[in-house]
Amino acid sequence: MGNVDYDYPRSGMNMNNVNESHVHVQHRVEIPPPQPFLKSMKYAMKETFFPDDPLRKFKNQPASKKLVLGFQYLFPIFEWAPNYTFQFLKSDIIAGITIASLAIPQGISYAKLANLPPILGLYSSFIPPLIYAMMGSSRDLAVGTVAVGSLLMGSMLATEVNPNQNPSLYLHLAFTATFFAGVLQASLGFFRLGLIVDFLSHAAIVGFMSGAATVVCLQQLKPMLGLEHFTHGADLISVMRSVFTQVHQWRWESAVLGCVFIFFLLVTRYFSKRQPKFFWVSAMTPLASVILGSLLVYFTHAENHGVQVIGELKKGLNPISVTDLVFVSPYMTTSIKTGVIVGIIALAEGIAVGRSFAMFKNYHIDGNKEMIAIGTMNIVGSFTSCYLTTGPFSRSAVNYNAGCKTAASNIVMAIAVMLTLLFLTPLFYYTPLVVLAAIIVSAMLGLIDYEAAIHLWKIDKFDFVVCVSAYFGVVFGSVQIGLVIAIVVSVLRLLLFIARPRTSVLGNIPNSTIYRNIEHYPNSNRVSGILILKIDAPIYFANASYLRERISRWIDEEEDRIKATGETSLKYIILDMSAVGNIDTSGISMLEEIKKISERREQQLVLVNPGSEVMKKLNKSHFQKDMGGNWIYLTVEEAVRACNFVLHGCKTNPKRDESEGWNNV
Amino acid sequence: MGNVDYDYPRSGMNMNNVNESHVHVQHRVEIPPPQPFLKSMKYAMKETFFPDDPLRKFKNQPASKKLVLGFQYLFPIFEWAPNYTFQFLKSDIIAGITIASLAIPQGISYAKLANLPPILGLYSSFIPPLIYAMMGSSRDLAVGTVAVGSLLMGSMLATEVNPNQNPSLYLHLAFTATFFAGVLQASLGFFRLGLIVDFLSHAAIVGFMSGAATVVCLQQLKPMLGLEHFTHGADLISVMRSVFTQVHQWRWESAVLGCVFIFFLLVTRYFSKRQPKFFWVSAMTPLASVILGSLLVYFTHAENHGVQVIGELKKGLNPISVTDLVFVSPYMTTSIKTGVIVGIIALAEGIAVGRSFAMFKNYHIDGNKEMIAIGTMNIVGSFTSCYLTTGPFSRSAVNYNAGCKTAASNIVMAIAVMLTLLFLTPLFYYTPLVVLAAIIVSAMLGLIDYEAAIHLWKIDKFDFVVCVSAYFGVVFGSVQIGLVIAIVVSVLRLLLFIARPRTSVLGNIPNSTIYRNIEHYPNSNRVSGILILKIDAPIYFANASYLRERISRWIDEEEDRIKATGETSLKYIILDMSAVGNIDTSGISMLEEIKKISERREQQLVLVNPGSEVMKKLNKSHFQKDMGGNWIYLTVEEAVRACNFVLHGCKTNPKRDESEGWNNV
Repeated sequence: MGNVDYDYPRSGMNMNNVNESHVHVQHRVEIPPPQPFLKSMKYAMKETFFPDDPLRKFKNQPASKKLVLGFQYLFPIFEWAPNYTFQFLKSDIIAGITIASLAIPQGISYAKLANLPPILGLYSSFIPPLIYAMMGSSRDLAVGTVAVGSLLMGSMLATEVNPNQNPSLYLHLAFTATFFAGVLQASLGFFRLGLIVDFLSHAAIVGFMSGAATVVCLQQLKPMLGLEHFTHGADLISVMRSVFTQVHQWRWESAVLGCVFIFFLLVTRYFSKRQPKFFWVSAMTPLASVILGSLLVYFTHAENHGVQVIGELKKGLNPISVTDLVFVSPYMTTSIKTGVIVGIIALAEGIAVGRSFAMFKNYHIDGNKEMIAIGTMNIVGSFTSCYLTTGPFSRSAVNYNAGCKTAASNIVMAIAVMLTLLFLTPLFYYTPLVVLAAIIVSAMLGLIDYEAAIHLWKIDKFDFVVCVSAYFGVVFGSVQIGLVIAIVVSVLRLLLFIARPRTSVLGNIPNSTIYRNIEHYPNSNRVSGILILKIDAPIYFANASYLRERISRWIDEEEDRIKATGETSLKYIILDMSAVGNIDTSGISMLEEIKKISERREQQLVLVNPGSEVMKKLNKSHFQKDMGGNWIYLTVEEAVRACNFVLHGCKTNPKRDESEGWNNV
Repeated sequence: MGNVDYDYPRSGMNMNNVNESHVHVQHRVEIPPPQPFLKSMKYAMKETFFPDDPLRKFKNQPASKKLVLGFQYLFPIFEWAPNYTFQFLKSDIIAGITIASLAIPQGISYAKLANLPPILGLYSSFIPPLIYAMMGSSRDLAVGTVAVGSLLMGSMLATEVNPNQNPSLYLHLAFTATFFAGVLQASLGFFRLGLIVDFLSHAAIVGFMSGAATVVCLQQLKPMLGLEHFTHGADLISVMRSVFTQVHQWRWESAVLGCVFIFFLLVTRYFSKRQPKFFWVSAMTPLASVILGSLLVYFTHAENHGVQVIGELKKGLNPISVTDLVFVSPYMTTSIKTGVIVGIIALAEGIAVGRSFAMFKNYHIDGNKEMIAIGTMNIVGSFTSCYLTTGPFSRSAVNYNAGCKTAASNIVMAIAVMLTLLFLTPLFYYTPLVVLAAIIVSAMLGLIDYEAAIHLWKIDKFDFVVCVSAYFGVVFGSVQIGLVIAIVVSVLRLLLFIARPRTSVLGNIPNSTIYRNIEHYPNSNRVSGILILKIDAPIYFANASYLRERISRWIDEEEDRIKATGETSLKYIILDMSAVGNIDTSGISMLEEIKKISERREQQLVLVNPGSEVMKKLNKSHFQKDMGGNWIYLTVEEAVRACNFVLHGCKTNPKRDESEGWNNV
């Protein structure tokens, strides 16, 4: 038994195993078993497009069962409906009514944000939730229109058609854009291209959403100040110019009413946040504000004193709009462009919200299937006078807090909205616009997530830059500019990671066979005569020249250091390839060049632990044979031992204390 | 002394060290020493823009020395000229005359490719080589115009201005584009943005160059067949249509002459390749062909029988063209666009050629400095009636083979061209265009590198796809389309690497403490009750959702496997983070979610060896504290041992033979 010292208490285990596990066998770096091209291609395709393996449950099932499963896959309602209980129904009715009370005033407000007739907000809370209830796999998503999407759609379409001068064409363009958004969403899901949405980083979304919320709040200055004319621009500068050139037009009645309602909404929200049991208080406040505001106007006749009101809303359910879609240029290109951008934004929000709540309740959501559901809901919506819908965070959170059990709460909400459409629309005649503005502002203030931005600054400066540039892009440019900036900066970051990978010098951690970054583990020691480098990224064309320069510089610096300290001269360059996930032909040429450079300096290049992809390619390119086969090791320890064996004719890793050095042995 | 078995012969070394190095101490994963924000920012900037540390030799020098060094840095001629010997001069004169004999016919041919007067080709081989000789750091680069750049410039400018209808405006646009190309090149160098050129992968360049060579050859069908009219399109289909609709216009005299010269050129090249001593044979052949062809035409009066000739070339040196630059729209945008694209292409060729020869002769080239040299040469060129120049591969190879020692061979070439301009231009009157076409074709055939494409297919399928799509993009679309396709496909590959990183299950290699991918090392064994996963890329927003899905699927699959075999149920998920070079906030959220998921399944998440960047961020985000601090280990072995300690109350890594399993212990 060895005089080996463990910090775990000894057990009665056979100690032979212990020693066996430390036998210094030289391990060969294997060339991975060859795979037929088609098989590896199929594997790559599966990992790229089907990482969640959606067909797993179809395996080994009879055809009839497969059909049923396929049907249930497309319409999850047939999966959960058979097990639906009365208890579920009770919960879903409560949740459904709660979200309906939020959906009605929000729907009307957001439609105004998109320059659309207010009634469209109600239409959009009727048909799409029904579709989603059948096709969606989330139990918590509450479907409806969103502020950012509405604003974006409004600002993009208004550049083509003036909503005041040509309201009917504008309306038809909105339906067409919604149609294309739906087609895009459904086909992204169908072709399993969910990965496109992944390129919207969390930081980008935080900045983008905060910026959009700021812009939406700024837009509310129009009804709040009772202004008749307002800029069509959404950026801070246009709005400020518009507001301060019309100071004499400001109406104090509107402003006072607005501030009172914003205060009321914020206080109830603060109260509900502190007392989660009373979530319904803040959920009901918007509807209560609408009722209060309407009564106030009705009794004081404030509509004659500068307080603008909604006016007449058409009674009746959604008219069919399938014949209104515009497929002629030049309008079609605008619709497609608008549809693509708002579609992706709406999708990102819907998927993210669905996933978060699924996490809480521990069930699984299939992102691509969700995309198909959201897409179908928008396609059908565009046929039935609805505009862009998704699963907004605020409404879904209320749904979740209200205790919804299944997507049936969406059906309850849809029925409540239907009853409103059929019987209650006249009641909104006297609803003051300023109350709607207050509802929007209070909802938007919750979206300006400065705490998240501070968190990003603390953890990851680059994420903070992405977030802030998205924010300023939206606020000072436009929503689209902000979006483009956010994506470009995020992608540049990825490319920069590859173009300028980290390399580090490894040292031996005292009394171990472990080698780690000497800057991370300052107590680790360099091995004399050997330079151990670790490359922290795949070696691709984008970093091949950089790595060649950088590795040369590491060698130069090490030689300078050695000259200064008078140690053993540098004989071995060990490259730890553990973190090199892949290599391309430029990368292999780079390795060949490094090998030539080191040979010219009479140094031996040693590779450690190339992964399977790297090993396969090194083998095919005959680089491995050039290396003499001998200078590729499985661990840094084995490589160091082999080098030391040649250097000093001894067999094990020496004591690496630099003060003693090998010269003294 | 332990009964440890080594496969190296024992030496007289103190064996205590050996045992010490195997002591099972639990190593802490350290949080890297905190760095002030500015310092880490400075480091990142240096690695991004100054990876080659160009200021190293300026360190610790007196101010006067620094000034001299700076001057030598900008004008390397002052570095090498003082040591210039007569021996060098002899070699450089031979090399210079050899490349001049190639430069004159090539210059004339390529200028025609760019729809420019042939004399511009000679002008461009006079001034730019002189500038480069002073500022360039390569000893082997021979400066001149290039076929691909000429064609690209010609096709881009011709879309704006017809070179036949408005030759003077076209000429001025060419100077302007050259000016902008130079400005771009110099500023890329000055702002150390050489990394942009790195994004042109080797595979993309091979495909792009082969495609461009094909297109250039196709263009030669016009002079070869003696056609008067020809398509302005460069793609295969336009050219074929143009050629085969004019069958009755074909001139057999031209065709026969052309084929004879192509054959002559190819045979001499083949001969020179087989007998490297006679490199000058193939280098002299173009000039010999020109002389032969001119004599032939002069004596047979073939110019009256359908053989087109160059005609009059103006005697005299480069006129000043600085006042010809066009800075008015709409022409300026075309010039800028053209300048940017041809500038980058020319730069990529020049840098790559310079680097390759520097590799052969073992000296260093500073890429960013080269860019400044090439850029300055084009700016000055645009002032002196030259168009786009760079360091073409063919001419530089001849220069290298002719034994050039310094950039002085460029000066010799420039003097030879100057003498030609002053005295010999009338001799080119009778030079048949078909000979120039033959020179171009034979040069271009060498660029169609099908062998490189086969090599790419063997080693890296994705590189092959990049190469082939660049080729077909150029041949069937246009040079610009091919370039854009090549870059987009290459960058998509990088993004795909990050978006869909490899994950693998690790197993224990028998009788060792090493854990590796079980697909790569089929003899490695899974550890019962523990799933060890390795993530092979940084964790960023682009792959966070994928990794969550994929890790969940690994766990599902492992549990299915365990169910099938009846082993110990899964209790630990070990994530080996050795290859995770960085993480962003989305990545940290992903880890938190994985932790929650595994907790819900009553499994413990264990992290192994997070790098310094990752550890820093985990620490700041308090994820590390959530982990209880205990479940982060430095090596997989230590993590497995800790898990086994809890699972089985034993202290060392158990025998992992699955047939025995832990149930039998």
